[in-house]
Amino acid sequence: MAPMTAAGDQPVTTPGEEMYALVERLYPLCRSITGDGVRATLQIVGEYIPLQVHEVPTGTQVLDWTVPQEWNIRDAYIADTAGNRVVDFADSSLHVLGYSVPVSATMPLAELREHLHTLPEHPNWVPYRTSYYKPEWGFCLAQETLDAMPDGEYEVRIDSALADGHLTYAEHVVPGQVPDEVIVSCHVCHPSLANDNLAGIAVATFLARALARQTPYYTYRFIFAPGTIGAITWLARNKERVIGVSPARAEPRARGRVKHGLVLACAGDPGQLTYKQSRRGDAEIDRVMRHVLAASERPHHVTEFTPYGYDERQFCSPGFDLGVGSLTRTPYAGYPEYHTSADNLDFVSPEAMADTLAVCREAFAVLDRNRRYLNLSPYGEPQLGRRGLYDALGGRSDTKQAQMAMLWVLNLSDGEHSLLDVAERSGLPFDTVAAAAGALHGAGLIKA
Amino acid sequence: MAPMTAAGDQPVTTPGEEMYALVERLYPLCRSITGDGVRATLQIVGEYIPLQVHEVPTGTQVLDWTVPQEWNIRDAYIADTAGNRVVDFADSSLHVLGYSVPVSATMPLAELREHLHTLPEHPNWVPYRTSYYKPEWGFCLAQETLDAMPDGEYEVRIDSALADGHLTYAEHVVPGQVPDEVIVSCHVCHPSLANDNLAGIAVATFLARALARQTPYYTYRFIFAPGTIGAITWLARNKERVIGVSPARAEPRARGRVKHGLVLACAGDPGQLTYKQSRRGDAEIDRVMRHVLAASERPHHVTEFTPYGYDERQFCSPGFDLGVGSLTRTPYAGYPEYHTSADNLDFVSPEAMADTLAVCREAFAVLDRNRRYLNLSPYGEPQLGRRGLYDALGGRSDTKQAQMAMLWVLNLSDGEHSLLDVAERSGLPFDTVAAAAGALHGAGLIKA
Amino acid sequence: MAPMTAAGDQPVTTPGEEMYALVERLYPLCRSITGDGVRATLQIVGEYIPLQVHEVPTGTQVLDWTVPQEWNIRDAYIADTAGNRVVDFADSSLHVLGYSVPVSATMPLAELREHLHTLPEHPNWVPYRTSYYKPEWGFCLAQETLDAMPDGEYEVRIDSALADGHLTYAEHVVPGQVPDEVIVSCHVCHPSLANDNLAGIAVATFLARALARQTPYYTYRFIFAPGTIGAITWLARNKERVIGVSPARAEPRARGRVKHGLVLACAGDPGQLTYKQSRRGDAEIDRVMRHVLAASERPHHVTEFTPYGYDERQFCSPGFDLGVGSLTRTPYAGYPEYHTSADNLDFVSPEAMADTLAVCREAFAVLDRNRRYLNLSPYGEPQLGRRGLYDALGGRSDTKQAQMAMLWVLNLSDGEHSLLDVAERSGLPFDTVAAAAGALHGAGLIKA
Repeated sequence: MAPMTAAGDQPVTTPGEEMYALVERLYPLCRSITGDGVRATLQIVGEYIPLQVHEVPTGTQVLDWTVPQEWNIRDAYIADTAGNRVVDFADSSLHVLGYSVPVSATMPLAELREHLHTLPEHPNWVPYRTSYYKPEWGFCLAQETLDAMPDGEYEVRIDSALADGHLTYAEHVVPGQVPDEVIVSCHVCHPSLANDNLAGIAVATFLARALARQTPYYTYRFIFAPGTIGAITWLARNKERVIGVSPARAEPRARGRVKHGLVLACAGDPGQLTYKQSRRGDAEIDRVMRHVLAASERPHHVTEFTPYGYDERQFCSPGFDLGVGSLTRTPYAGYPEYHTSADNLDFVSPEAMADTLAVCREAFAVLDRNRRYLNLSPYGEPQLGRRGLYDALGGRSDTKQAQMAMLWVLNLSDGEHSLLDVAERSGLPFDTVAAAAGALHGAGLIKA
Repeated sequence: MAPMTAAGDQPVTTPGEEMYALVERLYPLCRSITGDGVRATLQIVGEYIPLQVHEVPTGTQVLDWTVPQEWNIRDAYIADTAGNRVVDFADSSLHVLGYSVPVSATMPLAELREHLHTLPEHPNWVPYRTSYYKPEWGFCLAQETLDAMPDGEYEVRIDSALADGHLTYAEHVVPGQVPDEVIVSCHVCHPSLANDNLAGIAVATFLARALARQTPYYTYRFIFAPGTIGAITWLARNKERVIGVSPARAEPRARGRVKHGLVLACAGDPGQLTYKQSRRGDAEIDRVMRHVLAASERPHHVTEFTPYGYDERQFCSPGFDLGVGSLTRTPYAGYPEYHTSADNLDFVSPEAMADTLAVCREAFAVLDRNRRYLNLSPYGEPQLGRRGLYDALGGRSDTKQAQMAMLWVLNLSDGEHSLLDVAERSGLPFDTVAAAAGALHGAGLIKA
Repeated sequence: MAPMTAAGDQPVTTPGEEMYALVERLYPLCRSITGDGVRATLQIVGEYIPLQVHEVPTGTQVLDWTVPQEWNIRDAYIADTAGNRVVDFADSSLHVLGYSVPVSATMPLAELREHLHTLPEHPNWVPYRTSYYKPEWGFCLAQETLDAMPDGEYEVRIDSALADGHLTYAEHVVPGQVPDEVIVSCHVCHPSLANDNLAGIAVATFLARALARQTPYYTYRFIFAPGTIGAITWLARNKERVIGVSPARAEPRARGRVKHGLVLACAGDPGQLTYKQSRRGDAEIDRVMRHVLAASERPHHVTEFTPYGYDERQFCSPGFDLGVGSLTRTPYAGYPEYHTSADNLDFVSPEAMADTLAVCREAFAVLDRNRRYLNLSPYGEPQLGRRGLYDALGGRSDTKQAQMAMLWVLNLSDGEHSLLDVAERSGLPFDTVAAAAGALHGAGLIKA
């Protein structure tokens, strides 16, 4: 659980290229929900941002689940009778069914076929398959590889180990002005898949670096954890942080420190950005993301919550019901390359990752300033002129946006409306509204 | 008040044909808001389902109204000087103004005309007219009949009787698992009109038979009563059942056993189904009917409540404000044949009645299972896999509908969302959602 | 503070022509936020309706503001070396920058230019400019006048006085049946501008006269006051009337006598009527104005509240948050003639002012009758027939609008719905609904 130290922090050229370089380094590793592939991944991310790594022992009860045995693999192949490796784990971590139990046998192709997974509709792609909770072994390979395999005997060998060990995840915290937290979560359990989710890991990493350069209002907690079981483990160990102490039965709404959150995945493909709303649909993060995406005039999609996809499933389970949405480019299972060997380094680009990162930064810039103020002079308009906040010359109709923003902030600062409400109702840019609030706060006309 | 016994319950061929046969038997009877026509009608319906018949004496105060005198009629005609019956009650019960006082006189056509009702725009149709609360006599006839009547003297005779007696209505109860009730009401006061409302009576009867074959969740109470005064009489005698004991002034919302209801009318014409929402507009029956009609992909209409039409007027008066909608095919006054002799046996069909019945059964199948559940494992997703409820092989994107339904039920089972909410939010069929809830309930993961 | 007496109340021909005649009389006066121009204006309005004139001393603290010194002006001009007046206040009150400090000097054109205001895009129009709160002097003139001025020395003279005095405003009250008030406010501080706001003053004046001819339900209070500082002064002196006694911090909603209000301005231009909603957006005045404008089938606009424009800014500040909207024809700054010499007597018409007046009267006729009733017979429909309120002959489908209105009023009179709610939900004209409520009230079936 020792924190890694930041290192190797030399910008290449652009943030997009830096993120791409990180994806390239992570790509060959064989990740799963436990094991050394996750550790190696976190080691590399730790060169960019300091990480607190957590190791949770096999058998630990986490909510309704139990931390499974740790899985590691050294080698795996299918060899023909001549000893030629027809399918070789060394070529791609996708070739082995995730969490395969060890096997060492010789068998005819007919028998072997029951353990082979292909994608007939994409004959030269290798699928990604796992069997975490049912003991099983298998290989994933291209249909055309299978088609080229003559009948006969094959040697199959999976040199894997399933044994008591640990589940590994990591956190990085950017301290803010208040202890209230925004969580940013991404999964780190997929093997050689570039978009799902190495691009997400890269964007999260560089987002953390960008936030650390300032002192944000919120405390931002980045979570790098295996999908499902990792999020569940984090939630089990952070229940009080998420929902506070002994919430009353009738009040499932989160009352802990975690106020908002975002799950990042599929952050590098060429598709449009897609924001999937939280279960609540009107959580502040939902409104912020909708606003920022619309204001940015990027083509994009906003979709309803569904209890499927990435770890928003866990954060938005009814007991937690967090204001956590999910940002992807093309969403979960929405592209043919999804969970195949075609989700490779060609499928993601520096430009797409840079775009995803930019939207995250814009969104957090809004979220971080989105406060409710109280007009301390709510009866009539205060006289802005004598405070130097208003044009002296009357009669002109081209009133400036900055003045309009001040009038709007004053008018809606009744403790019920946030600055985002002001921006949306007035049609003014959030930045202008936030600047007006700053000026009014400076003049003592509003208080937070 | 002795219950009639079921009899004559031999299916002809299809439910549609059986219902049509019932309509044919009821068609010739001269029904009104009181009298032997209603009793004869209930006698025949009682051959299909056991009925509890209620007789309420003339003069009984029922809410703001008083049960009127009972009206019965033996004969009525207009005869020319040669003794030929130009208009004869024996030909059609429509020929006499409903509730006509007796008359026996000879008068010139000019004087008689003031008592004649025709439909000039449909010269060969006979209109349906009544005068329940103002003593009056009259005949309804085709315009072309009137046009063919030469000036001169006519003998007019209405051999009717208005005397203290009873108002008659009946109930049939299908017992459920809980005492909470769903009421199904139809009016039985119209004479020889097939669609309005013999088709409604037939659908109600066969709906009761279908429900009786199972033990539904709710108790279903069928009410066969004359329009307006019958519904008011039933409400007066069932006020506690409807609104509970002494509702506080400020709380007019129904708190008795009656939770939902449907008024059935015009159930056999060739038009599209029309659901008229309750006064509340968002009552559970409204949501169920909208959902079922939309999901069935039948062309249909959903209309707003109006305080006119059938007995939903009474059930939805502000003191009761029940969640009672109305299902018709072409609605009240929406077809030219409405309240004329053209609303005859040719105007209704077995197919249309079967279709109305089918929608009622689908709707009650949803209503009956539409429960709110509580997720007993609300923090994160419960591990469905070890309970045999989840595919073991991960990574595939073609997640099955059944699994999605389980995730949706778990996610929304916070005590606030019903299964219909789950179906609507998820876009999954209600049946799939209900089956998922059953599986989860069986696994002890949710409770009702 | 002595009330003026009504006089000179001889109708010319039509209300539109009468209003236009009033505008013509007021046009030449040099109004500002204080001074004799306002007094002279109120003197003339006082010939039409009795006014209570209030004089508030310079230096009085009014909310966040202070009543400024009083400004008066006798003469002002720019003369060339030959003594010819190139720009002369006697020609138009617009020529002097409002609230100019006195000046008497000779200076070259280059230096004078800094004090000259023109509209280069409309070279023959004179702009309207003021400098109330920053000591300044200046002239407004046509660009073409400026272009024709040769370089050289000019004599400039503004014979104005800024001295302790008073701010002047007036009220006119039409007493109603209840002390609850509707305020109608218009600004009286603009010099020779016909649409903004002499037309508004004229419409308010004739609206008051029209209301006085009946005894309305509400008490109507008309406020003639200078913009911004006048409204703020009125609010400061009527805080209890507006928000009641010591409103709890958490309840900013107005709880005083003032229930509704309308700011009138720009009431005479050829554009369509525009209703700008109150800050609340769903205040009763908003619903009434939307309903009346839609029902009238006039082309019109309804716009959202903004904290800019006329004195709705003050009435809708968050501490007061009154249900006050603003009615104009072309709104604030929405026409090129706005705040220029082209907003003259040709720009307004008797017809436009008559149209604005008519809509105000229709709206107040609805507002004044828009009561919530309670159905005293809420269980089922009451028997309207025996009270002579319902057709005796049944069976006909052409039920009359008046009967439908009675059924709707009965159905929705649960203490929650107003007659406007009934009109909107039923689609019936408000007048029909109000008449039905009257009939039912007369029959003792509903109470207010």
